[in-house]
Amino acid sequence: MRNVLLTLSYDGKAYHGWQVQANAPSVQQTLQDAWEQICRKRDNVVGCSRTDAGVHANMFCCNIRTENEMPCDKLCTALNAVLPFDISVLECSEVPYDFHARYDCKSKEYIYRIHNSPVRSPFLYGYVWHYKYPLDEKMLDECAKQFIGTYDFTSFCASGSSVEDNTRTVIAAGVERHGDEVVFRIEANGFLYNMVRIITGTLIGAAQGKIDKDGIVDIILAKDRSAAGVTAPPDGLYLNKVNY
Amino acid sequence: MRNVLLTLSYDGKAYHGWQVQANAPSVQQTLQDAWEQICRKRDNVVGCSRTDAGVHANMFCCNIRTENEMPCDKLCTALNAVLPFDISVLECSEVPYDFHARYDCKSKEYIYRIHNSPVRSPFLYGYVWHYKYPLDEKMLDECAKQFIGTYDFTSFCASGSSVEDNTRTVIAAGVERHGDEVVFRIEANGFLYNMVRIITGTLIGAAQGKIDKDGIVDIILAKDRSAAGVTAPPDGLYLNKVNY
Repeated sequence: MRNVLLTLSYDGKAYHGWQVQANAPSVQQTLQDAWEQICRKRDNVVGCSRTDAGVHANMFCCNIRTENEMPCDKLCTALNAVLPFDISVLECSEVPYDFHARYDCKSKEYIYRIHNSPVRSPFLYGYVWHYKYPLDEKMLDECAKQFIGTYDFTSFCASGSSVEDNTRTVIAAGVERHGDEVVFRIEANGFLYNMVRIITGTLIGAAQGKIDKDGIVDIILAKDRSAAGVTAPPDGLYLNKVNY
Repeated sequence: MRNVLLTLSYDGKAYHGWQVQANAPSVQQTLQDAWEQICRKRDNVVGCSRTDAGVHANMFCCNIRTENEMPCDKLCTALNAVLPFDISVLECSEVPYDFHARYDCKSKEYIYRIHNSPVRSPFLYGYVWHYKYPLDEKMLDECAKQFIGTYDFTSFCASGSSVEDNTRTVIAAGVERHGDEVVFRIEANGFLYNMVRIITGTLIGAAQGKIDKDGIVDIILAKDRSAAGVTAPPDGLYLNKVNY
């Protein structure tokens, strides 16, 4: 037995998120099917996190404990040959047997892409949140920086979540502009359900004057979902980096 | 009556090209349907060129002679509201009544995007030609520059084309690299059927050593389709600029 770490990238448009679901296609299921086709055995795939329906990954890590002995470079090529075009295996390597893609993750980085242009782009449908009014990325960056720190982020957690402790540490957060794209970037030791999307919605709320741009910490301290902004659509969200 | 110029951008993945066809969706048809829905009258849309099935446009121009009097900015907004996500109207303006999007075009620029990476990207399917072996963009650029000039480009025209004179002037041509993307750019006063795709296929042939990288002019002078390389897939091709 050995433990194999796969680094993936996927377009989440067609999937109901990472996690296997009863009646909907998922990335995990698709990967497990590809694995079974190559390795002739159904091994369990452990993902670094769940992603929501329609959310993308520039980098996603998962590990598989397996009896299969195919060399890692061949495994990578073989999996890519059978996977659909919207999931790619970027890397494959052997890791210590007790490595766990979720428990051993030190931090993750997400980005949220906002296409800030009067007219939507035909090439970005499903890949960005289109916002047609001018955005001030400096102001958004100042807002974003207020999320840095260790807090109970209940205000930025979708109601109905069953997690017991909502305390997370945001290590870095900021907003940059690249042409007509405004990108929100956030790294934390963990994320609550819909946390990045609610933070993004709150930033847009600040841009619209509906949220006090200097009052982000007050919203955090309220520990009340209704104090924060809307939940941004999944389209613009990408798991961007997984740190071990 | 007036003459309206529309500047479009479209993702060609779902369309059998620009031109109206009997049994397949086309961009022209989709635009004419949207126009009819907004203007309550079916006016004829004149495109600057045809594009093949699966080919994209960062910029495409067309003109419509119409009795409709809606202000141009409203027309733009209204068309975008009814058009599908993969076609956008970027601009709308009034032009002289005798302006013709095809006949008045002085030159057009196409780009061809090659994703040069060992692993394909899940986000680029249908939008690039994935080529996994290393490409030398300097060598490709030198090859590309040999296309500049006025020639009979019969060697770079799909057989079966009914055009009488295959002489065209290539004004500019070159290859640049942006990270793992290699982009071929070509401007000419006109293009033959599949010309950019056959030139791209020939450049890749040179990269593979199947085509003499210093013999491009000989291939042109042969006036023989079989002297050139393969036809690159439509996926990576974009009409990029239309000059009047």
